[in-house]
Amino acid sequence: MSSPFDFDLVVKNGFIVTASDTVRADIGVKDGKVVLLMANIPVPDGCAVIDAEGGFVTPGLIDSHVHIAQSAAKSLGAKSADNWTTASQSAVAGGCTTVIAFAVQNRGTSMQAAVDAYHDLAVNNAVCDYSFHVIVTDPSEEQMHIELPKLIEQGITSVKIYSTYPALKLSDEEILNTFYAARQYGVTVMVHAENSDMIAWMTRDLAERGMTEPWHHGTSRPPIIESEATNRVLALSELMDCPVLFVHVSAPDAFKVIREAQTRLMSVYAETCPHYLLLTAQEMKAPGFEGAKACCAPPLRENPEDRERVWENTVNGTVTVVSSDHAPTKYHDEFGKQLGLTKNPGKNPRGDFRYIPNGLPGVETRGPLMWSEGVCKGRMSPNKFVELNCTNAAKLYGMYPQKGTIQPGSDADFVIWRSPSARKTSKVTVKNLHSACDYTPFEGHDIEDWPVLTILRGKIVYDGKTNDVVAEPGYGAFLKRGKSSLQGPRNKWLSDWRPRYMDDQAKANGA
Amino acid sequence: MSSPFDFDLVVKNGFIVTASDTVRADIGVKDGKVVLLMANIPVPDGCAVIDAEGGFVTPGLIDSHVHIAQSAAKSLGAKSADNWTTASQSAVAGGCTTVIAFAVQNRGTSMQAAVDAYHDLAVNNAVCDYSFHVIVTDPSEEQMHIELPKLIEQGITSVKIYSTYPALKLSDEEILNTFYAARQYGVTVMVHAENSDMIAWMTRDLAERGMTEPWHHGTSRPPIIESEATNRVLALSELMDCPVLFVHVSAPDAFKVIREAQTRLMSVYAETCPHYLLLTAQEMKAPGFEGAKACCAPPLRENPEDRERVWENTVNGTVTVVSSDHAPTKYHDEFGKQLGLTKNPGKNPRGDFRYIPNGLPGVETRGPLMWSEGVCKGRMSPNKFVELNCTNAAKLYGMYPQKGTIQPGSDADFVIWRSPSARKTSKVTVKNLHSACDYTPFEGHDIEDWPVLTILRGKIVYDGKTNDVVAEPGYGAFLKRGKSSLQGPRNKWLSDWRPRYMDDQAKANGA
Amino acid sequence: MSSPFDFDLVVKNGFIVTASDTVRADIGVKDGKVVLLMANIPVPDGCAVIDAEGGFVTPGLIDSHVHIAQSAAKSLGAKSADNWTTASQSAVAGGCTTVIAFAVQNRGTSMQAAVDAYHDLAVNNAVCDYSFHVIVTDPSEEQMHIELPKLIEQGITSVKIYSTYPALKLSDEEILNTFYAARQYGVTVMVHAENSDMIAWMTRDLAERGMTEPWHHGTSRPPIIESEATNRVLALSELMDCPVLFVHVSAPDAFKVIREAQTRLMSVYAETCPHYLLLTAQEMKAPGFEGAKACCAPPLRENPEDRERVWENTVNGTVTVVSSDHAPTKYHDEFGKQLGLTKNPGKNPRGDFRYIPNGLPGVETRGPLMWSEGVCKGRMSPNKFVELNCTNAAKLYGMYPQKGTIQPGSDADFVIWRSPSARKTSKVTVKNLHSACDYTPFEGHDIEDWPVLTILRGKIVYDGKTNDVVAEPGYGAFLKRGKSSLQGPRNKWLSDWRPRYMDDQAKANGA
Amino acid sequence: MSSPFDFDLVVKNGFIVTASDTVRADIGVKDGKVVLLMANIPVPDGCAVIDAEGGFVTPGLIDSHVHIAQSAAKSLGAKSADNWTTASQSAVAGGCTTVIAFAVQNRGTSMQAAVDAYHDLAVNNAVCDYSFHVIVTDPSEEQMHIELPKLIEQGITSVKIYSTYPALKLSDEEILNTFYAARQYGVTVMVHAENSDMIAWMTRDLAERGMTEPWHHGTSRPPIIESEATNRVLALSELMDCPVLFVHVSAPDAFKVIREAQTRLMSVYAETCPHYLLLTAQEMKAPGFEGAKACCAPPLRENPEDRERVWENTVNGTVTVVSSDHAPTKYHDEFGKQLGLTKNPGKNPRGDFRYIPNGLPGVETRGPLMWSEGVCKGRMSPNKFVELNCTNAAKLYGMYPQKGTIQPGSDADFVIWRSPSARKTSKVTVKNLHSACDYTPFEGHDIEDWPVLTILRGKIVYDGKTNDVVAEPGYGAFLKRGKSSLQGPRNKWLSDWRPRYMDDQAKANGA
Repeated sequence: MSSPFDFDLVVKNGFIVTASDTVRADIGVKDGKVVLLMANIPVPDGCAVIDAEGGFVTPGLIDSHVHIAQSAAKSLGAKSADNWTTASQSAVAGGCTTVIAFAVQNRGTSMQAAVDAYHDLAVNNAVCDYSFHVIVTDPSEEQMHIELPKLIEQGITSVKIYSTYPALKLSDEEILNTFYAARQYGVTVMVHAENSDMIAWMTRDLAERGMTEPWHHGTSRPPIIESEATNRVLALSELMDCPVLFVHVSAPDAFKVIREAQTRLMSVYAETCPHYLLLTAQEMKAPGFEGAKACCAPPLRENPEDRERVWENTVNGTVTVVSSDHAPTKYHDEFGKQLGLTKNPGKNPRGDFRYIPNGLPGVETRGPLMWSEGVCKGRMSPNKFVELNCTNAAKLYGMYPQKGTIQPGSDADFVIWRSPSARKTSKVTVKNLHSACDYTPFEGHDIEDWPVLTILRGKIVYDGKTNDVVAEPGYGAFLKRGKSSLQGPRNKWLSDWRPRYMDDQAKANGA
Repeated sequence: MSSPFDFDLVVKNGFIVTASDTVRADIGVKDGKVVLLMANIPVPDGCAVIDAEGGFVTPGLIDSHVHIAQSAAKSLGAKSADNWTTASQSAVAGGCTTVIAFAVQNRGTSMQAAVDAYHDLAVNNAVCDYSFHVIVTDPSEEQMHIELPKLIEQGITSVKIYSTYPALKLSDEEILNTFYAARQYGVTVMVHAENSDMIAWMTRDLAERGMTEPWHHGTSRPPIIESEATNRVLALSELMDCPVLFVHVSAPDAFKVIREAQTRLMSVYAETCPHYLLLTAQEMKAPGFEGAKACCAPPLRENPEDRERVWENTVNGTVTVVSSDHAPTKYHDEFGKQLGLTKNPGKNPRGDFRYIPNGLPGVETRGPLMWSEGVCKGRMSPNKFVELNCTNAAKLYGMYPQKGTIQPGSDADFVIWRSPSARKTSKVTVKNLHSACDYTPFEGHDIEDWPVLTILRGKIVYDGKTNDVVAEPGYGAFLKRGKSSLQGPRNKWLSDWRPRYMDDQAKANGA
Repeated sequence: MSSPFDFDLVVKNGFIVTASDTVRADIGVKDGKVVLLMANIPVPDGCAVIDAEGGFVTPGLIDSHVHIAQSAAKSLGAKSADNWTTASQSAVAGGCTTVIAFAVQNRGTSMQAAVDAYHDLAVNNAVCDYSFHVIVTDPSEEQMHIELPKLIEQGITSVKIYSTYPALKLSDEEILNTFYAARQYGVTVMVHAENSDMIAWMTRDLAERGMTEPWHHGTSRPPIIESEATNRVLALSELMDCPVLFVHVSAPDAFKVIREAQTRLMSVYAETCPHYLLLTAQEMKAPGFEGAKACCAPPLRENPEDRERVWENTVNGTVTVVSSDHAPTKYHDEFGKQLGLTKNPGKNPRGDFRYIPNGLPGVETRGPLMWSEGVCKGRMSPNKFVELNCTNAAKLYGMYPQKGTIQPGSDADFVIWRSPSARKTSKVTVKNLHSACDYTPFEGHDIEDWPVLTILRGKIVYDGKTNDVVAEPGYGAFLKRGKSSLQGPRNKWLSDWRPRYMDDQAKANGA
Repeated sequence: MSSPFDFDLVVKNGFIVTASDTVRADIGVKDGKVVLLMANIPVPDGCAVIDAEGGFVTPGLIDSHVHIAQSAAKSLGAKSADNWTTASQSAVAGGCTTVIAFAVQNRGTSMQAAVDAYHDLAVNNAVCDYSFHVIVTDPSEEQMHIELPKLIEQGITSVKIYSTYPALKLSDEEILNTFYAARQYGVTVMVHAENSDMIAWMTRDLAERGMTEPWHHGTSRPPIIESEATNRVLALSELMDCPVLFVHVSAPDAFKVIREAQTRLMSVYAETCPHYLLLTAQEMKAPGFEGAKACCAPPLRENPEDRERVWENTVNGTVTVVSSDHAPTKYHDEFGKQLGLTKNPGKNPRGDFRYIPNGLPGVETRGPLMWSEGVCKGRMSPNKFVELNCTNAAKLYGMYPQKGTIQPGSDADFVIWRSPSARKTSKVTVKNLHSACDYTPFEGHDIEDWPVLTILRGKIVYDGKTNDVVAEPGYGAFLKRGKSSLQGPRNKWLSDWRPRYMDDQAKANGA
């Protein structure tokens, strides 16, 4: 029998943080796995030691909402700024050891084909672990009931749907069909909720009036557009009794309907992003065309009060996960934000928001910003940070307990943060970031602390002292995921399932 | 100069009831108009006298939501039980002196054609005054901006839209276009709000399971289907800042969203009907196929508590008007409810709800039921009754002050009700009703009082003592209506109007 | 038989406004009563004629909340600026023909004694009609069950209670006893709701810190102090099932709990005042000691948004009556606001809010301000104005239909207002007012229209063209009031009444 | 250096459950402390081994609300059924290793005297660890600002206050003073919230009517009595910006106001108890006088729907801790429930609720019932169970991480539960319980699993196989507690603290 002290690595002198506990203890690691937690582990010969110096050791962060090398807004001819190598380098530099990106089904083709194509892009290129959500654009009987079970066997256990964008949007009926299948197979459904026709109407009307400056992207998508769609999709999910996650929630009234449903134990989850916590529509009014850098959907909100509501909901339990919604296009690039100037030239010298590719870079800044603004500024405990940025995503997307926590048996994915007394304020600048994108919307924002080290499966992948990514492309591995373990009491999978209203009705009739 | 006492008719010894006042006074009438209100009017020679015997004199009731001889559910081959003569006879026998029926635009044809066709049906046949709402199925640029203004000149100042029924439903974009035009021209928009795709999904699923008994009509349209659509259409109207009336509201959560919007002064109005106040889904579970008699949309609700919520909202100010939604098809008729048995024979001996024509008769019972259950049982004052059944409809649909009140200058439309001490309880029975429909869903319900007399423009049209309609077909006249005078503070028509979000945005940017 | 045309007065060419109707008609008046409403009344010889010139004729306004010559804050040694003559002159100059003032029971003495004393003050002095509410400070068994019924026979049918002020406040138990008796005898209960202990705590703490400037009166009474007390008293009234009116509601959260209770048909009513609609706490920060002029309780609110919420609730149906809460003390007077400087001299050069007598003058400006800001600026219809300023007070306090409307049989109390085209903007200035108070908090506010004439029982009492009060002191008469006719469906007086929870409980147990 | 394998005890083959994680790992224990967590710990010679057999290992439960040998309802002459030995034996037999009982300050005496007296009762008698909350009845300047800091140094860091019971209740002003001091010193305040005057009024009225049967205890305290007091005390705590825990919350509307405050990040916490989750007022209607067994305050609620709301709030995050509110008096005992028969003999053969001592036994059944009804029936995850029954209490009351979790360095307090497949349903019966009380209100309730073992600081104290408590009286130790670590973001202790409204006001004025 080998000695139980046969470790590869010991992380010493840290406070281990989980979603509920903070413990002064060392971590013993072997073969990329956590082996034991114990105060003052005696270090065996030849074992590497990392000294956390009294700082915090959190699980490696999970970014469950990133767009990498994705051909989404292809109608515009836009190109993603990042490929899998640059995106994943950017991720680990921000403490993120696992990303879940999107594989887009093209209408009329299969989900499997989409997944295969995105596998090809990621394999051999990623420096962090990864998986895919499938964006469903065609929830046909075959796709939902033949292909989806196959994807689940391959470890793809989540899908995303849209209520807007002509190329992506599903009708209410298609959404019902998707929920019905998802409920049956235990798949997590993510929803981008904005009212498509409202956006189209506003956009057309603004264009007719010549109001096309970047900030009118926000005019075209007021908060009611998000809260309406959220309420509608929630109703569809309630009819089907299917759990649902609303992504990038930004409107106070959307949070209201979500929290109301959570209150009565609907399994509804919410995601938000740092830009809704820290930025406002003011960014879109930067001089000239610079506002294009801040165009994303849902848009940054006008009212600073709304931002406070996002913080409240992030801390009060309504929000389940924080992600980046990393969707980078370059500003100085003919296939990037400049399309907003070149696609409709001459009409409006400040550009045309209809042709600006949506999306912001953010996979690298999410963790440091949430740690700085959340933990360091006292808005949330380190445990809440871990819950929102690690554990809940791992549970919801079927990666727990391999990912998302620090426990015997888990992957040895860690971020080392400084102790409060060792923190030094710096500023975000694109120069220091590892994404291929040429700007960050958080330029100049204060950072109270940045990861000292990012460790993936026992190996240092990012060294904060030199700001170097030290892992080789290809070190990142595909994660086969299982079903969600974050299901509420209403959502036990039934073999003979029927929509709940039928059950209710049957019960009402003594059947 | 003729004497000011040159009356045709004096109504004596009554309590005149308006939406805010109850006055012991006589009414002098000349040429079909109210001339004066005064205690103890001296009766000139040759003048008719009606003695109200200490009872109440309310304005003639208005039923602003009736389907008469309408070719709506024609896909089923169903036929309306009533023509204009029987429907209007039924109306006046229930105290109703004015009805507004629907003229359905067929897709691809003009609204004018629809109105013309329905004019032909009504003229020379009605015994009560009448007008039409246009059901818009095709809100094209031409229909909304060329034809609609013409209809307004003809006195047609309201439209109705549907969010469900394949033949009638509008998309969100079409609804926005309708609201945009309605806002511009001051047209009142009525909305039937149920989620079409949810109904389709549930209906298909129930059919696959063989659950087609009449009461599964209710299963297929649970309350969330109504509350979702109400919330959505309310959001569309808020974006356009256009007043909207939700018809036949039945779901507590729909009332909730409406009241919440009223609280912040949105111009949103609600209508409900006696069947949602007095019946439940239990009616659809009558033996055999009898439940078909109670099938309407939205369906009668399962939970008796929901009925209490409808009463609460009817009394607390949320509901603006009470109507009948008279939509009669016979039970014993091959073109009536029996279609639910014959269209899919042999499958389910209790029938198939998918083929049961929706709708209930009710134009005659509405007034007496609301008076009995509302006023006589102490749930509302006589003034509230008048507000809900007369005045608000007159204001909202542009007939005020000609209709809906008792004031000098108004049409002399009255209902005489007994004094409390003279009331005698009777029961509703189809035998006593004047509609051609062969049943009433209120069979056997108690009536505390029934109109003693119905008077239209100074003439008795219904005599309650003999239960006879005494007016000739053709006495009823078409009413040219104006714009709504029931607009809230947000809704002043602007010459240079833009959707409010643009204004808000413009304001936010100092423009 | 005398001719029916034997009028004293005809008011011609006006639009008669009631709470629900606007009618172009003339009004015939005889012996101080309205006799008939009719278009173009032929004027008999010797009959006076008033030409409304196309303007509006509303009922005479009722101010149901005024403090006149009241010895309330006597602990401070303050004196009311007005006696009954000046106060009632001020009233009629603002269109108000009826006031209800307060008679304060002193603890240990009888309510009858209080009423008798206030009768003495008013009789022979008033130029408008009047009545009293009794402020109950000692709801003993004898006072509530022997003396209260006697007062009702005298026409005193309403009481007011306080949850704050050491000299006035009732304990929860005393409030329950008051509600119990009020419920039994059909008495309307008005409540001043602020949390006494919270105010005391904040006041003491502020004084210890030397924060005694006038505006700290507001600091000492934040909105939560009002909303807490409102919620508490509402709960007490719900337990007793007794209707209740909250006076001078100013806090958005107080409106919220009131509206929520109204939604479920509790008989709860709300009053607000022009100063909560038009002023903010900013007024208390005027230079030097001038802020004292704006000290009242509840205080003017800090947040301009709160003011918008008051408007919303005034228009959306939550508010039942608008009153002035006229409580004048002079600014330049040793027994007035100056007490805030002299009672604690030398400590704080800007004074001490603890010694500033609470209260604002306002009986004269209420009507013109509500007409200007409400009707002329399009926030409410003339009918809503009449409902809030005339009809509802008349109904709630048992004066209807003698007061509060224009109908055959009602007192001929009118205000003549100009037609929209004849309006001219002027400014409020204390110089033009008829109160003995030496300032108005509305100095400089725009007035779109001021009463042309005020008519009480058929006589002109105020002539707006000369700004003269033309009635003699003593013309005003005491009004014997009956019980409220504004009771909701829950509040039918029962001979054998028990608190509702007992009934509910009994029902739950089959009793 | 001693070997790191020098354990006393290894717990093997269990799933370790914390508030966020479930881990298959062994636990190494030495000297009563957890030393390490690791899969398959090699067991050193002489080390004890406990085999969890695939079951769950939770932290030892904490019951933070028990009344032991307390002289509370002494006015009645009632005696607690339990002394510290029997109560603590009952605790460990239900998996509870730590209790916090109450030390009651008698008015006019010091809190220190109370604590000293209760120390004397507990020391040498307890078999579980323990601490005290002080019930404050006299928050004088001296007690709050001189004595309270001393108690904190002794490890007493929480107080409880009452808004009802004549002997215990504080006025609003006293509550404000308590919150002010608690805020300053970081003390956790627990509140029993019921409206005292409402209870007194109802009780008197019921007694006058002869309605004194046990179930009228419930009539006398309807839900509005709790929700009103909850709202009031919440307002007081908001004014002072002091965290507050509402104990034994039972009324849906009380949960509503709590959740609403949590939504906007007020530091408000809620506790509930198994009897509000599992019983209704029906229990008080047992034949004869048996209903006395179910009398507690707040009372069990009438409406079974209310019970569902308690479950919802227990699972949805509103409830912070579950406790027993153990307050046992015997049924067959002249100093117990029989006082309800003997204190007012002859009047009502079914007794008089006014003399029934309030309170239920429950310290032993809480854990097994919550595990059975919560975890085994699928209403909550094992993690949520640990959060509610262990971790949150430890954090809120300053015992974390010594108690409430399983981590290196924590006390080795565990409960071993069976794996799902090994569960066997049994029934609660008083015969098997270890309290001296002669009944349990849960008699006959199903239990899906009962602790196999309870372990306190590394020693087995209860053996479920034999149902024997195996610890000696005196093994339990007093716990010196620190300040709460469960504070929300609003509640950072400030050196120069002022009530928040002053800060807000100051900020509003630029100070």
